[in-house]
Amino acid sequence: MSETDPLVVFTPSGKRGRFAPGTPVLTAARKLGVDLDSVCGGRGICSKCQITPSYGEFSKHGLTAREGALSDWNAVEARYDEKRGLKAGRRLGCQAQILGDIVIDVPPESQVHRQVVRKAASARVIEMNPATRLYYIEVDAPDMHEPTGDLERIARALAAQWSIPEITCDFNALTRLQPVLRKGEWRITVALYRETETAVPRLIGAWPGLLEGGIYGLAIDLGSTTVAAHLTSLDTGEVVASSGIMNPQIRFGEDLMSRVSYAMMNPGGDVEMTRAVREAMDTLIGEIAAEAGIGADRILEAVLVCNPVMHHLLLGIDPVELGQAPFALATSAHLNLTARDLDLDALPASAQIYILPCIAGHVGADAAAVALSEEPGKSDDLVLVVDVGTNAEILLGDTSRVLACSSPTGPAFEGAQISSGQRAAPGAIEAIRIDPATKEPRFKVIGCDLWSDEEGFAEAVGPGGITGICGSGIIEAVAEMRIAGLIDPSGLIGNAAQTGTPRCVPEGRTNAYLIADASKTGGPRITVTQGDIRAIQLAKSALYAGARLLMDEMGVDKVDRVVLAGAFGAHISPKHAMVLGMIPDAPLEKVTSAGNAAGTGARIALCNLPARAEIERTVRRITKIETAIEPKFQEHFVNANAIPHAVDPFPELNSVVTLPPVSFSTGGESEGGRKRRRKRA
Amino acid sequence: MSETDPLVVFTPSGKRGRFAPGTPVLTAARKLGVDLDSVCGGRGICSKCQITPSYGEFSKHGLTAREGALSDWNAVEARYDEKRGLKAGRRLGCQAQILGDIVIDVPPESQVHRQVVRKAASARVIEMNPATRLYYIEVDAPDMHEPTGDLERIARALAAQWSIPEITCDFNALTRLQPVLRKGEWRITVALYRETETAVPRLIGAWPGLLEGGIYGLAIDLGSTTVAAHLTSLDTGEVVASSGIMNPQIRFGEDLMSRVSYAMMNPGGDVEMTRAVREAMDTLIGEIAAEAGIGADRILEAVLVCNPVMHHLLLGIDPVELGQAPFALATSAHLNLTARDLDLDALPASAQIYILPCIAGHVGADAAAVALSEEPGKSDDLVLVVDVGTNAEILLGDTSRVLACSSPTGPAFEGAQISSGQRAAPGAIEAIRIDPATKEPRFKVIGCDLWSDEEGFAEAVGPGGITGICGSGIIEAVAEMRIAGLIDPSGLIGNAAQTGTPRCVPEGRTNAYLIADASKTGGPRITVTQGDIRAIQLAKSALYAGARLLMDEMGVDKVDRVVLAGAFGAHISPKHAMVLGMIPDAPLEKVTSAGNAAGTGARIALCNLPARAEIERTVRRITKIETAIEPKFQEHFVNANAIPHAVDPFPELNSVVTLPPVSFSTGGESEGGRKRRRKRA
Repeated sequence: MSETDPLVVFTPSGKRGRFAPGTPVLTAARKLGVDLDSVCGGRGICSKCQITPSYGEFSKHGLTAREGALSDWNAVEARYDEKRGLKAGRRLGCQAQILGDIVIDVPPESQVHRQVVRKAASARVIEMNPATRLYYIEVDAPDMHEPTGDLERIARALAAQWSIPEITCDFNALTRLQPVLRKGEWRITVALYRETETAVPRLIGAWPGLLEGGIYGLAIDLGSTTVAAHLTSLDTGEVVASSGIMNPQIRFGEDLMSRVSYAMMNPGGDVEMTRAVREAMDTLIGEIAAEAGIGADRILEAVLVCNPVMHHLLLGIDPVELGQAPFALATSAHLNLTARDLDLDALPASAQIYILPCIAGHVGADAAAVALSEEPGKSDDLVLVVDVGTNAEILLGDTSRVLACSSPTGPAFEGAQISSGQRAAPGAIEAIRIDPATKEPRFKVIGCDLWSDEEGFAEAVGPGGITGICGSGIIEAVAEMRIAGLIDPSGLIGNAAQTGTPRCVPEGRTNAYLIADASKTGGPRITVTQGDIRAIQLAKSALYAGARLLMDEMGVDKVDRVVLAGAFGAHISPKHAMVLGMIPDAPLEKVTSAGNAAGTGARIALCNLPARAEIERTVRRITKIETAIEPKFQEHFVNANAIPHAVDPFPELNSVVTLPPVSFSTGGESEGGRKRRRKRA
Repeated sequence: MSETDPLVVFTPSGKRGRFAPGTPVLTAARKLGVDLDSVCGGRGICSKCQITPSYGEFSKHGLTAREGALSDWNAVEARYDEKRGLKAGRRLGCQAQILGDIVIDVPPESQVHRQVVRKAASARVIEMNPATRLYYIEVDAPDMHEPTGDLERIARALAAQWSIPEITCDFNALTRLQPVLRKGEWRITVALYRETETAVPRLIGAWPGLLEGGIYGLAIDLGSTTVAAHLTSLDTGEVVASSGIMNPQIRFGEDLMSRVSYAMMNPGGDVEMTRAVREAMDTLIGEIAAEAGIGADRILEAVLVCNPVMHHLLLGIDPVELGQAPFALATSAHLNLTARDLDLDALPASAQIYILPCIAGHVGADAAAVALSEEPGKSDDLVLVVDVGTNAEILLGDTSRVLACSSPTGPAFEGAQISSGQRAAPGAIEAIRIDPATKEPRFKVIGCDLWSDEEGFAEAVGPGGITGICGSGIIEAVAEMRIAGLIDPSGLIGNAAQTGTPRCVPEGRTNAYLIADASKTGGPRITVTQGDIRAIQLAKSALYAGARLLMDEMGVDKVDRVVLAGAFGAHISPKHAMVLGMIPDAPLEKVTSAGNAAGTGARIALCNLPARAEIERTVRRITKIETAIEPKFQEHFVNANAIPHAVDPFPELNSVVTLPPVSFSTGGESEGGRKRRRKRA
């Protein structure tokens, strides 16, 4: 190129260069390293390389562009526009040739590394850089005089047409190559998967001609209770369908330790549970693909996050070692597997499965995913990340250091072991307020936007009515009862005389608070019992003790901010969590919810290959704290039982909340009974 | 080490060095790169590092060794000797310490790269350098304060104890690691597999403690008709058991092309055939392991050679493309697979399968194995290698160039399509001589060492008697009939009057030669019919035409030597093959048999990892000739029909063989009938 050649400036990158007149825009973009997509390699059939030329005076770029700076609209573009439609002002980068100085904009949808903006405003943006990409190639027909295999000619085409010097081929994909090549008459689209950024790409799929509609991956959060999956375009990063299913292992045990026990007590029990969860994943994948109307052959990747017990049960490893000290994982490393390895029949056998690394025997790939999503190690202020579920995963850190532990909160936060408890489902009370003066409750149920004291509530709730109280509801209930002076700092519920409300009703030798009563019409009578309070106290003490343990290790007694994660974390009211003493003291505005951070982490790892290497590095640097062997954990646990702390944790809320100095007689429950119940889940 | 330190000389390598007094012999050997084995890493438990010290005057080495040049026999050696017995004069290299100048001999069984001498004297020696090796390690117990997975601690032990910086782990091996580690109380033996010499080793097996008895591999020759396997020690290279089984695909078609047709005509037929051959391999592997008394968990590798159709059918690739021009292979490259990929349940799922590369659509991994075994590319004189089976694989070359083709000889050479033909089995005539004067035959049958004219033959053959004539028998019969003047150069059998023997009997409109007749006692009547002669002529013409085609391409009209390979090749008499005109002219002493060269090639690739890279390189350099599209092939084929050639091919045999100038009338068979039968198999 010479100084008199046309100057091209690409936006938004700002990259610029001079090119001989007649150079296609795509060629110029590639030479400059401009992020302009193409699947067909410039043959004018994939339309991925659309660009928007800017004409007119561009003094800020120091050049004057003119109408004739690009070659005229050509037959390929006209045909494409006729068949599919091209947005006004758009050109195909592989067809339009540079004739004069010009500014060319690459719109977001034409960028390979386009950014996916997530809903939560605080969250990081995902840059599309998936492990699997499509390449359209034209393969030489076989020649008896130079007999090479079909795969070898595909490799040659990729080298010549895409400068990919070397590939390997998944065995299952290999067995299906020949008919695809012939159906496509030697023009095919192949999917190449890179295990790492520098790995030799592996051919994992092939389709005749140019594949329309792109390929997809699954971000799967394999929880103890539910399995959730997000079907995501590997092209745009868009989630095209989401679905969840109950983890069928629940029939072998509600919580993880009872599943480990089941494996210990029943020979072959681990195999049974492995089969159950794999079948459930197959069902889920089948449903989600059907919902999105996408053939399963298009789903080429899945990224999985899960806790260590689910991790081992999915892989077909007996989880017995995770049920006893020293809680040894078979492997803590990330895993690159195939659908065939896991017998996942709903996916192509060559679909690639990436499982995030585990942090420790109790802190799994789900916690690693939270670390990937929330990045405590990149935070300038000290952040506590709590993923609340049956077990709570807790991360504490800043740029200097990240600590992690897991705490056995048990299932109370999910509405289990609560007298009127239920899972978060329509009919469940999810939020509650108790008037400090009248002690009367008002509440919201899932599936209805109205509060219970608003007009039309009864009709809106419908015939199903109010069915129970879910995790976030019970947390708010207990906190509101404390705020309203219905329970004392030790957690004891006062009687009607002590509290001044007939809603405090006797129940056995203790009292309960009556929220709603439909028993006259055959419906449920929803109360918060003394047992419920004790269950929540145990759970919140475990959570708090875990957080305190990390703070001790870090040598701090307060944190700058708190992130509540987990599907459940998304619904906890930060104010009530602090009233309850679930989390350490922090300014209320510094307590945020990250939603399903583990699922987000899975989605990041699915859409961005370098993020996998990043979390693998990060996990190696995280300091793991084992709560089971730390004597201070027990100490913190006992100390955290009261509601609230000895020191008022939220002075800035005092205008709103005044914690009454009430104290009730201990009623019928002995301290011994409470201690016995403190057994670890 | 200083100049005054003891000098150690190792034999047979001649490597020498000075070491501080007290240095264990194994340590010295490792520092010098002496080939001294060890599985336990010097812990005195594996006994692999046995050495023989030489005491006395060693003037030839320029040093004087003395009795005290090694430390005394120690408790570890005494215990080992008591438990297992140590040969007189032997020491354990890891226990014996160097105290003075000494010569130390490493006996062959203590060398890692020991050489395996094969039976055939001309054949190359195999150096043991298998892809899979055992390593005994002591692994750290898990520690809650530093929670790493069991696999990560195994990797750490391999790095510290064996200087292996990095490993990967087969997924199926990973799922079985934890109980092995605990049963071995953190002392285990692992098997590491390297795909190439520089590849990161992959853990593919683990056993508690020190594994006794070593590990094994299978060299498998997957033929159209039979599947043969040799169970081989990966330690010594010794074949501990060999077995064969009929290829059950025979029920879908005797020859390869009828199996391809079966796949074309029957939807799912390829899947059926794939299942059949995999099941047969499972049966064979189970039998061979049982015969050798070796647990299947010890069989960690298999090397497979086969023709292209069997290759595709085994892999689960529809062979349809191999049944029609241009005979495109799905892949011609070598394959690294696992037993799980091929659903071979008789092997551990993590067992590694290596399949040699294919040369072309008609020239398979079996021909590559022959090239590996016979090394035509390393021959100074021009060698023709013919692997005779249902298809003949033909290689021609020297150090300058190697050519390859395959020729469709059909199954006649294996006794099929022959009126009295049968497979090589007890009762089959395998050798025959016809007295040129009396025209009387004498013969040998499989299972009996006597010739038919020797005393006691009838008793020795037993009640089963003579059942038919096998491939080598029919070749000898036709050649001997030509030598005895019973057939003319065109292949026509004379009648009794023309030949002067009543053994030439009329059969339809042509004649047949009666070899044996037990029809009076209900036994078979064994004849060589005109049809048999025609079938052998077609087969030998195809073989000869293929060889000629390669000679044309090479620009030669004679070869320096001929190697007959294939299980069947081992039994062909070179003299008779030349009388028949199966192979081009060569001095008789230059025609040798390589036995089952394909099987040998598989065994070489099994025992020696660098040999795999070598054959992968070699195959890329071989020039492939496609007989199906070379007009000269047809020409050579037609010209080769006569017995013998126009030019006498073996003047040096004239003292033995005088080919009579007989000519008979053409009898009832028309040329058209013969042409129709010339259809390619």
